[in-house]
Amino acid sequence: MSTPLRIAVAGLGTVGAGTLRLLSENAEAIAARAGRAVQVTAVSARDRTRDRGIDLSGYQWFDDPVEMAARADADVMVELIGGSEGPAKEAVEAALSAGRSVVTANKALLAHHGTALARQAEGAGCTIGYEAAVAGGIPIIKGLREGLAGNRISRVYGILNGTCNYILTQMSDGGGPGANPIERQDFDAVLAEAQRLGYAEADPGFDIDGVDTAHKLAILTALAFGCEVDFDAVYVEGIRNVSALDVAYAEELGYCIKLLGVAQQVNGAVEQRVHPCMVRKGQPIASVDGVFNAVVADGDFVDTTMYEGRGAGAGPTASAVVADLIDIARGATLPVFGIAASGLRRLPTLPMERHSCAYYLRLLVLDKPGVIADVSAVLRDAEISMESMLQRGRAQGEGEAVPVIIMTHETTEAAMQGALARFADLEATLEPPQLIRIVDF
Amino acid sequence: MSTPLRIAVAGLGTVGAGTLRLLSENAEAIAARAGRAVQVTAVSARDRTRDRGIDLSGYQWFDDPVEMAARADADVMVELIGGSEGPAKEAVEAALSAGRSVVTANKALLAHHGTALARQAEGAGCTIGYEAAVAGGIPIIKGLREGLAGNRISRVYGILNGTCNYILTQMSDGGGPGANPIERQDFDAVLAEAQRLGYAEADPGFDIDGVDTAHKLAILTALAFGCEVDFDAVYVEGIRNVSALDVAYAEELGYCIKLLGVAQQVNGAVEQRVHPCMVRKGQPIASVDGVFNAVVADGDFVDTTMYEGRGAGAGPTASAVVADLIDIARGATLPVFGIAASGLRRLPTLPMERHSCAYYLRLLVLDKPGVIADVSAVLRDAEISMESMLQRGRAQGEGEAVPVIIMTHETTEAAMQGALARFADLEATLEPPQLIRIVDF
Repeated sequence: MSTPLRIAVAGLGTVGAGTLRLLSENAEAIAARAGRAVQVTAVSARDRTRDRGIDLSGYQWFDDPVEMAARADADVMVELIGGSEGPAKEAVEAALSAGRSVVTANKALLAHHGTALARQAEGAGCTIGYEAAVAGGIPIIKGLREGLAGNRISRVYGILNGTCNYILTQMSDGGGPGANPIERQDFDAVLAEAQRLGYAEADPGFDIDGVDTAHKLAILTALAFGCEVDFDAVYVEGIRNVSALDVAYAEELGYCIKLLGVAQQVNGAVEQRVHPCMVRKGQPIASVDGVFNAVVADGDFVDTTMYEGRGAGAGPTASAVVADLIDIARGATLPVFGIAASGLRRLPTLPMERHSCAYYLRLLVLDKPGVIADVSAVLRDAEISMESMLQRGRAQGEGEAVPVIIMTHETTEAAMQGALARFADLEATLEPPQLIRIVDF
Repeated sequence: MSTPLRIAVAGLGTVGAGTLRLLSENAEAIAARAGRAVQVTAVSARDRTRDRGIDLSGYQWFDDPVEMAARADADVMVELIGGSEGPAKEAVEAALSAGRSVVTANKALLAHHGTALARQAEGAGCTIGYEAAVAGGIPIIKGLREGLAGNRISRVYGILNGTCNYILTQMSDGGGPGANPIERQDFDAVLAEAQRLGYAEADPGFDIDGVDTAHKLAILTALAFGCEVDFDAVYVEGIRNVSALDVAYAEELGYCIKLLGVAQQVNGAVEQRVHPCMVRKGQPIASVDGVFNAVVADGDFVDTTMYEGRGAGAGPTASAVVADLIDIARGATLPVFGIAASGLRRLPTLPMERHSCAYYLRLLVLDKPGVIADVSAVLRDAEISMESMLQRGRAQGEGEAVPVIIMTHETTEAAMQGALARFADLEATLEPPQLIRIVDF
């Protein structure tokens, strides 16, 4: 056994404390696999006195993570502060400047600055491990970067946010399997319950508006396609507008609704999008429920592969952090995004208007003669062909509001957005139409 | 870029040809990820003249793979011959003796000689890559050895043989979703069809008798638990006795039947078993159908993770072979089973008699007074408690044969085998009872 790998840990929240606990509880097994001990030497957090249930007395303490990154007696800095700017970014840059590799769970940082940081790391002969930044404990970064390294990846997509998947699953399950559809809870009620249970943050915007998924997707895209990280090119739509009604209709039509991040190569351009999707039941990803995450990668030789596990939480995230540390302890300093950062290409973006798929539409219209004819005319004029239309049980009486559900054949986003604008102009349309894209994987 | 990694390929069947094709078609991407070119320099096969659709003229040819392993101008030998003894084993040993690392898809070889070969490799400063030996294109070896390296793994199990999973899926689907149960095909008919389609070998014994699954399981066990490979300790039962009737009853009871390989640690002992299992629908692994494979690994920090993909075929297997080659090209020479081979422990085996689970039993009995009382008495005497019994629709008349389906509560294999022997003694029992173990993951 050689000398221990010395670690400085910045940020001692849930994941930081979990990482210290894992490194301590499984120290022997970790040393056997790493070929040497992995030893924490320094820590930094906002509050030294807070009780985290772990003994910090053996570690050098730093109030300032940036100072720790620069000066600690450590080979690697683990960054668990979070946030794309501020101390997290400064500490990572300082560690790399000091020639130390970095392990981080910070998807926002890599989504915004991944290319530059990868170049800085590789210039300094270091690496950045970020297995914990995407899909928690699932070793998907390693899977894509190394396990599928022989393949050209054409598409990668997944359920990347456990909060959203928990909410959508709860909306779908209602009071459990077989529950009366009328018991289905609407989005706000399920979100409140998720917050009470600790599955959603007090400020849930990053999760439910799709930003967190988009951060992770931007990282997967760079890794899968060997291109620069381009967060700004991700089309992002969250799940706030998904209603219990949509969930019920999806089920009736043989689908479930999932928030997916999807990246694919289309004629040399890259499409990155995050939005609620109708996924046909029976698809492997349709049965990934609750807080679980899953990633599907399609390679030219391996075909379709799927990876599933817990996407968050102290244990799974610590598992990913420690996997990266063991790699570094073994001497693996792979290129951050699989190929040399200097070789990451800037690929053109396929704009969302040119995205093409089938659509689910839900309109709320006044139940009066001619409405369906008007709705159909809008679609016809936009050259969108309908696969099915569902208008069931009329309201109390003529002039009441009724939902109309339309499934279209494949068309472009541009055509669909044109039709949506026209729907809004119809006198009988009572609210903006709901649109959910149907994926056909 | 440094000098190319030079490869000698032994065995040019489907997988060998697929590997050459992948190395050639994706050469540029592979070089970018490996940091250098991966170049085939020598090949060996039984027949030089056979048309494989690939140009072999640029490679040094060897009639004898063992000679190639010793003498070729190569850094790594890829062994795709197969078989636990003979030329495959000799070639691997020769390559390691010559200080060359080995990449192999040969599960039989590693199941029987894995520990010794790992020790030889590590003694010579080499490694053995065997991603292709288990679950085809799914990067499960890398996942366990590196991705989950921070965890203590308590259990690993999976669908490891695509032929069996295809047959069981076909028996379950019958003529497709929603087919009349009467159209269900029995085992022999589906096997014949699978052979016609190329999903089963002309001599299907290794697959359908569970031996292939057991080979792969023995490898996963060593890797997951850090112990010596112990193929002889695997309890093995294949799928020949699974009937269309069992598949239909399973479905009715909310289960499907899968051939699983299961390895778990039970109080410091290791249990390794391969047998048909009743898996409750809704479990992620229950929806892994057709030729797909899946592996589930439970770690103490990461919790449950699942990996799914194609378990066989030229493309997926070549993908796994090339992933190992890229690792070696990058300079990664990890311990073969995750920890130094010298440190692999010999763990005690939990004998099958002590296995404990719930059971599905199907008896064929004469429909006459007292039969059910006799059957119940056997279970009572063995202290096995019934969860349910199903005896529906009587036969033509008294004295005809009718199936009786029993689901038991958890009991030991020893108790159950005792009961089975007693059932055989009952006059009304017409054939040996069918037993399928119910898994509760």
